[in-house]
Amino acid sequence: MGFATLSLIAGREAANAGGEFRAVNPATGQNMEPAFISATRDDVDRAVRAAQEAFLVWRKRSAPERARLLRAIADGLDAAAAELVDRAQQETALPEARLQGETRRTSGQCRLFADVIEEGSWVGARVDTAMPDRKPLPRPDIRSMLQPLGPIAVFGASNFPLAYSVAGGDTASALAAGNPVVVKAHPAHPGTSAIVGRIIVESIRSCGAPEGVFSLLFDSGFEVGQALVQHPLIHAVGFTGSRNGGRALMDMAAQRPDPIPCFAEMGSTNPVFILPGALRQQGKQLATGLFGSFTLGAGQFCTKPGMVFLPSQPETTPVLDELRRLTSESGAFTLLTPGIATNYKRSLQSRREETGLAMQEAKEAKGMCAVSAALLETEIDDFLANPEWSQEVFGPTSLVIRYQQREAMMRAAEELEGHLTASVWGTDADLAEYADLIAILERKAGRLIFNGFPTGLEVSDAIVHGGPYPACSDSRFTAVGSRAVLRFARPVCYQGFPEASLPDELRNANPLGILRMINGNTTREAVSS
Amino acid sequence: MGFATLSLIAGREAANAGGEFRAVNPATGQNMEPAFISATRDDVDRAVRAAQEAFLVWRKRSAPERARLLRAIADGLDAAAAELVDRAQQETALPEARLQGETRRTSGQCRLFADVIEEGSWVGARVDTAMPDRKPLPRPDIRSMLQPLGPIAVFGASNFPLAYSVAGGDTASALAAGNPVVVKAHPAHPGTSAIVGRIIVESIRSCGAPEGVFSLLFDSGFEVGQALVQHPLIHAVGFTGSRNGGRALMDMAAQRPDPIPCFAEMGSTNPVFILPGALRQQGKQLATGLFGSFTLGAGQFCTKPGMVFLPSQPETTPVLDELRRLTSESGAFTLLTPGIATNYKRSLQSRREETGLAMQEAKEAKGMCAVSAALLETEIDDFLANPEWSQEVFGPTSLVIRYQQREAMMRAAEELEGHLTASVWGTDADLAEYADLIAILERKAGRLIFNGFPTGLEVSDAIVHGGPYPACSDSRFTAVGSRAVLRFARPVCYQGFPEASLPDELRNANPLGILRMINGNTTREAVSS
Repeated sequence: MGFATLSLIAGREAANAGGEFRAVNPATGQNMEPAFISATRDDVDRAVRAAQEAFLVWRKRSAPERARLLRAIADGLDAAAAELVDRAQQETALPEARLQGETRRTSGQCRLFADVIEEGSWVGARVDTAMPDRKPLPRPDIRSMLQPLGPIAVFGASNFPLAYSVAGGDTASALAAGNPVVVKAHPAHPGTSAIVGRIIVESIRSCGAPEGVFSLLFDSGFEVGQALVQHPLIHAVGFTGSRNGGRALMDMAAQRPDPIPCFAEMGSTNPVFILPGALRQQGKQLATGLFGSFTLGAGQFCTKPGMVFLPSQPETTPVLDELRRLTSESGAFTLLTPGIATNYKRSLQSRREETGLAMQEAKEAKGMCAVSAALLETEIDDFLANPEWSQEVFGPTSLVIRYQQREAMMRAAEELEGHLTASVWGTDADLAEYADLIAILERKAGRLIFNGFPTGLEVSDAIVHGGPYPACSDSRFTAVGSRAVLRFARPVCYQGFPEASLPDELRNANPLGILRMINGNTTREAVSS
Repeated sequence: MGFATLSLIAGREAANAGGEFRAVNPATGQNMEPAFISATRDDVDRAVRAAQEAFLVWRKRSAPERARLLRAIADGLDAAAAELVDRAQQETALPEARLQGETRRTSGQCRLFADVIEEGSWVGARVDTAMPDRKPLPRPDIRSMLQPLGPIAVFGASNFPLAYSVAGGDTASALAAGNPVVVKAHPAHPGTSAIVGRIIVESIRSCGAPEGVFSLLFDSGFEVGQALVQHPLIHAVGFTGSRNGGRALMDMAAQRPDPIPCFAEMGSTNPVFILPGALRQQGKQLATGLFGSFTLGAGQFCTKPGMVFLPSQPETTPVLDELRRLTSESGAFTLLTPGIATNYKRSLQSRREETGLAMQEAKEAKGMCAVSAALLETEIDDFLANPEWSQEVFGPTSLVIRYQQREAMMRAAEELEGHLTASVWGTDADLAEYADLIAILERKAGRLIFNGFPTGLEVSDAIVHGGPYPACSDSRFTAVGSRAVLRFARPVCYQGFPEASLPDELRNANPLGILRMINGNTTREAVSS
C-alpha cells in the first residue's frame, strides 16, 4: 500500500488514537479498504504548532526556494497520476479522463504559483523615498510589500479530489505566499488525499523545506475542522464546499477571540440568461450545450448552470423539447457520496411537490449514489413568488424559467443573490438592448460569461472564481487564478530602515528585478539613492 | 449658522423626529449650541436606499467625473478651513495648528484618491487573450478589473474630527472606488461633521453627482450605527475607534444573513524597542522624543507609543529621570470627551493599585476633560506576568519596561498581540545583532519604524495603517494611503465579451492608458487583436 492511513504531522505519522472510517465507493456502495484513523485534538495542536515553527523559517525562504517545493509537488503529482486517478476514481466515481485532466490542472496550479512568486511582482512592493527638506515636515523613507499571514487551515472539497483538495489551489497559493498549511482531508476521498500527502511530504524532504509547512489531518466528522479553525496559531482559513459548511467555518473564524480571515467558496446556482436574438440564432444547439454543462461531472461543479432564463418565442418549444429529450434519455449519474445523493433526491422530491414547477426526469437510477438527471421548468411569475427555487441543488439538474416580459426577467436579475458566475447568450443587438442586464449582473457575480456556459474554469491571471455572498465569504478575493495568492498575505511597511535590514524586494537596487511602485511610478528600475 | 442640525439624507435635511443632543466643549465642560437631532431608523433606511439608487449611476461615472467630486470636496474643505478649525477646536479642544494641519491632510487625502483613480491603474486590470487553437481545449478571452462594492457605512472617529471623519480617508476612498457612503457622524463633534456634510452636499451639486452618494446621520447613541451595519443594502463598513466599538461592528457585520466586510482600525499600544547601542548614542534625546510622541494630541493617536522596552545599562537612569521630569512638570491635557477622560482616569487608577508598577504623574488637573500625563514603569518579569498591562490606555501615558536580558525582551516581543506599529531604536550594530527582533515584529505589526516614533503618519502610496487583530479587523488592508481604496472594491471578470460591452479599462486599445497585466506581462500597451 502506497500511502499512510494515519494523519501526517510535519512528515510523521500521527499516533493511532482516533476513530476509524472508510471511504465509500460510490459506484458500488461498498466500503473501501483500508480504514483511515481520525486525528485527535492533540494531533491538531501538534500539527499547528509544527506549522508555526516552520513558518518562522519558511517565510524567510527565497521565492526560488518556495517555487522549488511547488514544482517538486507538481512533478510528484504528475509522476503519480496513474495511482492518483485509479484511487480517486474508486473514491469519487468521476470519469478517468476528468480525473486525468484534474491531475494536470492540479500540478499546473502548483507551477502557476511557482511562476508567480519567481517573477516576484505579486508582493506589490512600494517605495516612497525620503524628502528630508519637505515643509512643514520632512517625509521619511517608507517601503512596503506583501508578506505571509501564518499557518493556514485548508479544507479539501468533495467534488474536486485533487484541484481543490490536499495540493489544490488553497494549499499551493498559501505555500507560495510563504505560509505553512494544515489540511483537513475530505473524508470522501481519504486514499487520494493520503497519496497526495505522501507526495507533498516527499517533496518537502527532497527540497529541504521545513517539515512543519505541511500536515494532513483525517476526520470523518467535524471535530478536527473545528479545532483547527479555533486554534490560536491558525491565521486564516481556505474552504471550498457547501453553503452550510462554509458559513459554519465563517462564523467560527469570526467568533474567535482574534477573528481571522476565512475564505469560503460556497458555490452558487450560476444563472444563465438567454436573450431573444441568441435563441433565434442558436436554437437547439443551446439545449445540447446547456444539458452538457449542467450534467458535466454529474452536475457537481460549483459553476453548474442551475437556472436558465429563456424567453417565450417560437424557438422556445423546440429548445425545451430537446432539453426534455436529452434529460429523459440520459443514463444514470453516480454522485460523489451517499449523503450528496440523498440530498439531491430530497431536493428533487420537495420540488416535485411544488405547484408551478414541472419536472422531466430520466428513468429511476439504481444504486446508493446513483441518480437521474432532472429538468425543472417554471414561469417567471411563479419563480419570483418562490425565491427558494433559486437555491443550489448539487447534482445533474437545472431549472428553466420562461419569461414573456423583459421587465420580469430584469426584476429576477435584480433579485439574484451573489453568484460565482452569470452567463448571457446574445447577439450584438441583444447586448446593446440589454446593456442594463449586464450592469445588474456585474453587481451579482464574480465572473460574467458571454455566449458560453460557466463550467470549465480557466486557471489564469485574469480569472475570478468568487463573488458576493453567499457564493463566497469575501467577494474581494478569488479562489482560482494567480490572484488567489492575495488571500493569504498582508502588507508590511518599513519606515526609515537602512538598506541592509530591508527585504530584497524593497532594496534600492531591486536585486529581484520586480515591478515596484516608486514615488507613484511603476517600474523595474532601481531606486536612485 | 452655517450648518444643518438635522441629518442630511441625499442632500436634504431629515425630518425633525429624533432625540436632541449637544456637543460638549471639553475645555469648559459646557454643552454647546446648537442642539443636533438624532436620525431615526427610518432615516437610516432612506439614506441607504438613496445610496443604492445613486450607486447604479455613480459606479458607471468615469474616473475623471469621480475625481472631480473628490477635488471639489477638497477645495471646499480648504475654503472652509477657518470655520472648520474654529468649530472643531471648540468641540475637541485640539490645538489650532493641529486642526489646520488635519484640514490640509483631509483635503490632501481627497486629492490623493482623485489622483489614484485618474491615473487608473489601481483597478488591476488583467487580460488573458483567447487561444482558440489550444489543446485539449481552447482558452476563452478572459478579462477582469476591480469594481465598487456598493453603499458603504462609514463611522467618524472621535480623535480625528476631519481626517478620519465625515470626509476622511474611508469616505474618500469609498467614493473614489465608485461607492456611495452613508456616514454616521461621531457625536463628539457634530458641528464639525455638519460643516463637512454641507461641503460635500454642495460639491455633489456643483459636480452633478447623484445626491444619494452621500448621507450624514447624527446619533448620540448606538441605534443608528447598528441599523446602518445591519441594513441589507449596506455592502461594507469602515470604522476607526476603540476596540470594543470596532469589535461590536465586526460581530454585527459577521452575523448578518449575508456577512459583509468590516474594516475596523481599533488602535494599539505601538511598542517601542530601544536597543543598547541606541540608548548609549541617543541618551536623553530619547526621553524628549518619546515624551513628545506619547503626549502628542494629548496621547489620543492610534499610533501613540504606549509601551517602551528599555535596556538596563548606565544610560538608563538619566533617560528615565528625564522622562519622569518631563512628565511631572507637564501641564494639564484636555481630552476629547468626558467619557474618554473618565476612562483614562479609571485606567490609571487601576494601574496605581498594581504591585510592580511605578507611576510618575504631573500634578492633578482640574476640569471635566482635563487630565495629567503619567509615566508608568515596570520590570520585564512583572510585565510578562501581567499581560493586561499591555492594553491601550487612550491619553497621555506610556509604560516603560526595563529589561536586563535580551531573552526576556524577545519573549515579550513574541507575546505581543497585533499592533498598528512597532518601533525600533538602534545603531547598525544593534540591527545586525537584533535581526530576529525585526523578524518577530514583521509578524506583529503593520508598520515598522526605525529610529523614529510612530506618531505622525505619512499619507502615501507605500504607507500601511493596519496590522493583525486587534489593531485592525483584517490585516490584509490599510486604512491610510492609496492602497486603502482596495478595501471597497472586488474583482469582476468578463469571459468572451465583445469589445463594445467591456468597460474602457479592459478594451483592447487601452483608451485610459492604464497599466494592465496582459498574458502575464504588465504594460500600458494595447492588446493586439
